[in-house]
Amino acid sequence: MSSKRISILGFGTVASGVVRILTGQSGMVSRRSGCEFDIRHVAVRDVSKPRDVELPAGVITADWKSAATDPEVEIVLELMGGTTTAREAVLAAIGAGKHVVTANKSLLSEHGDEIFSAAREAGVCVAYEAAVAGGVPIISTLQTSMTSNQIVSISAILNGTSNFILSGMLGERRSYDDVLAEAQRLGYAESDPAMDVDGTDAAQKLVLLTQLVLGKRVSLDEFPRQGIDTLDLDDMLYAQELGYRVKLLAVSKLTGGQLEMHVEPTLVREDRAIAQTDGPLNLVELEGDAVGRLVLSGAGAGQMPTASAVVADLIDVAVGRTQQSFPLLEIWNANDSLKVLPAEQIERRYYLRFSVEDRPHVIADIADILGRNEISVATIVQHEAPEVELSDDSGAVLVPLVIMTHRTTEGRLRASEAEFAKLSTVQSRYVRMPVAD
Amino acid sequence: MSSKRISILGFGTVASGVVRILTGQSGMVSRRSGCEFDIRHVAVRDVSKPRDVELPAGVITADWKSAATDPEVEIVLELMGGTTTAREAVLAAIGAGKHVVTANKSLLSEHGDEIFSAAREAGVCVAYEAAVAGGVPIISTLQTSMTSNQIVSISAILNGTSNFILSGMLGERRSYDDVLAEAQRLGYAESDPAMDVDGTDAAQKLVLLTQLVLGKRVSLDEFPRQGIDTLDLDDMLYAQELGYRVKLLAVSKLTGGQLEMHVEPTLVREDRAIAQTDGPLNLVELEGDAVGRLVLSGAGAGQMPTASAVVADLIDVAVGRTQQSFPLLEIWNANDSLKVLPAEQIERRYYLRFSVEDRPHVIADIADILGRNEISVATIVQHEAPEVELSDDSGAVLVPLVIMTHRTTEGRLRASEAEFAKLSTVQSRYVRMPVAD
Repeated sequence: MSSKRISILGFGTVASGVVRILTGQSGMVSRRSGCEFDIRHVAVRDVSKPRDVELPAGVITADWKSAATDPEVEIVLELMGGTTTAREAVLAAIGAGKHVVTANKSLLSEHGDEIFSAAREAGVCVAYEAAVAGGVPIISTLQTSMTSNQIVSISAILNGTSNFILSGMLGERRSYDDVLAEAQRLGYAESDPAMDVDGTDAAQKLVLLTQLVLGKRVSLDEFPRQGIDTLDLDDMLYAQELGYRVKLLAVSKLTGGQLEMHVEPTLVREDRAIAQTDGPLNLVELEGDAVGRLVLSGAGAGQMPTASAVVADLIDVAVGRTQQSFPLLEIWNANDSLKVLPAEQIERRYYLRFSVEDRPHVIADIADILGRNEISVATIVQHEAPEVELSDDSGAVLVPLVIMTHRTTEGRLRASEAEFAKLSTVQSRYVRMPVAD
Repeated sequence: MSSKRISILGFGTVASGVVRILTGQSGMVSRRSGCEFDIRHVAVRDVSKPRDVELPAGVITADWKSAATDPEVEIVLELMGGTTTAREAVLAAIGAGKHVVTANKSLLSEHGDEIFSAAREAGVCVAYEAAVAGGVPIISTLQTSMTSNQIVSISAILNGTSNFILSGMLGERRSYDDVLAEAQRLGYAESDPAMDVDGTDAAQKLVLLTQLVLGKRVSLDEFPRQGIDTLDLDDMLYAQELGYRVKLLAVSKLTGGQLEMHVEPTLVREDRAIAQTDGPLNLVELEGDAVGRLVLSGAGAGQMPTASAVVADLIDVAVGRTQQSFPLLEIWNANDSLKVLPAEQIERRYYLRFSVEDRPHVIADIADILGRNEISVATIVQHEAPEVELSDDSGAVLVPLVIMTHRTTEGRLRASEAEFAKLSTVQSRYVRMPVAD
């Protein structure tokens, strides 16, 4: 049986998991890859740090550059994270004719075009299943099983940290800050969770999936993005009362020949698989013109699920499948004629919550503004809810008023919001979320 | 761009869908396959029958043998169904050096070993994504994305007809016969639905998945199999009351070093994705040693979802991915040391429903039998339910008694059942279903 020499750049949690599979399941991996993997280098920042996975002597090195370019090595696994050294290392490996497997979503989100082009020029390939949705094989599904379909929409939960926090808030009636602290203790959230909870992480992944499906490369500032970091439990409870769950939903779809994208806390009907996805899971719902609706869900992060995706990519490269797929991916089909739908034109239903003074004509004022902006009201809920009872500076009692609109545009809602802001009876605690189709 | 010549054997619903994708999305298919597909032959039984999809002149033929062996053809799509002519045609194509794509689960279930071996010998490959779970890419996921995992269990809804009937029964409080008739009207059930509703279809698919995951080829008579055709709505309602849904669940898993398999109507906790899968959908839940739990769901049948899988296979063959995967599949790892767990030793919880005479000591008699067979009772429900009130020949009122057991073996339950049969106070309407872990 032939042997393939590999280098691993970085030796954190995921890399340890990769080594664990390659050594612990070596028989299985050899049978399925048709080769044995020979780990020649593991590049780390601190060679003296103790490791919980054993490696052959002489493998650990601080010299990532030599590890990435060693003429004997065929495949380089980039698991160092970050976008500076990782970019240099990946480009060096590609320049030296290595195939690259990476789990680095930020790297591909920022420097994907440069890296993909360099790989194409060098005649090598880049595999990145682990960069999106952890152990869920969404990249492979889009690259192979869905080649027979024009994917017309993706609706996905792509950030496990946010989903864990949302599930904890609703399930245990706890505040955002409280559940975030628990997520950090359990390792589901970084000590600096900003990119997870502000929607950036999910948006970066959505960009990669969209490029794979449509060729089109969209930058983060071209579509609306909001995180869960300002979400109130109250709104999750109102949503539940109305038959919905609030999820950080990433959406990319073809709408009237344009590309509609957004990442926002969104109300999803409780009977849908997306709404029922709890804890640190990821879920991707695809709609293809032939296959219809297809759902994949599983662990979106974690050591072994992510390592599972990295090793599957490594085996695909060893077998030669990736080399055949890579030149035929939609990422080479720039699709310049496809435009991103301007945010103002996005059309959907909305959930609105106002904090209003409990006095006559308040509802009429709001309804009047909505009406003049051609927004129809589908549902209106106002009941005394002691747990959210507030008073304003003057001591007037504030009550929550929840409205679900019929389909309207983001533009019309924004115009209405400019008018709501001028109503003296409506206080600043105004919340709005879109509702998924 | 190169051109690949193909033959299509059979021109029913799925084949028409395949032609529709190849002609309607030819640009997309060419981009992703790196070639153009040239349909040289479409073999049918009756050449004069009018078709709703247009084909080039001279393509339609009644001569399946020439279509399967034409020296100019590289890939043969077997979409004729059945196991006699289909077997001959597939073996003829393989013998003539063609790669084969098939959607024929019965064929592979009966003659898979012969066909796979012939293909290996001829140096060609057999692709069969469409044979299991229609549009859900479970074969591809197991062959590629899960190569990094030892799959330790599969729990799946693999028969859309049965699932459609179960959903209709519970959702609309209708009888089995009534919903079956509707399923036939809507095209979800064949005019002869026996193989779908008696569990054979799901069992055949489970055999194919198990072989792909573990190498082991199991025959249908080696594991328990029951269909939904004897199911009462009453039991679905009791299950619901207890927090469960009844699903035709196909299970294959490693238990203490042995292979446990069964296909039976099974109670599944209502909060699980399997329980929430309604209508003609399929769902496969995998558990891998690295990835953890992974769920795929989508359309398990229907023209375009099945055609989607066939065309994805065709593209995989055209690109060359299948040729690389096929020799490395687990199907070549005969795994003879793995034994099928004898049915008697299968261990799980059970749902039991008795129709008992409403008189003293009945419950004690049943509990005594269970107790002597070391089966503990977890839940017991007896309440007067007018809709199921019955009387026996002597006019004594019968009432339903529902018991959920703790974990026990099939063997112990069978021993108890032999004793239940002798109780004069328990009538013949006895129902039992396993409960999923």
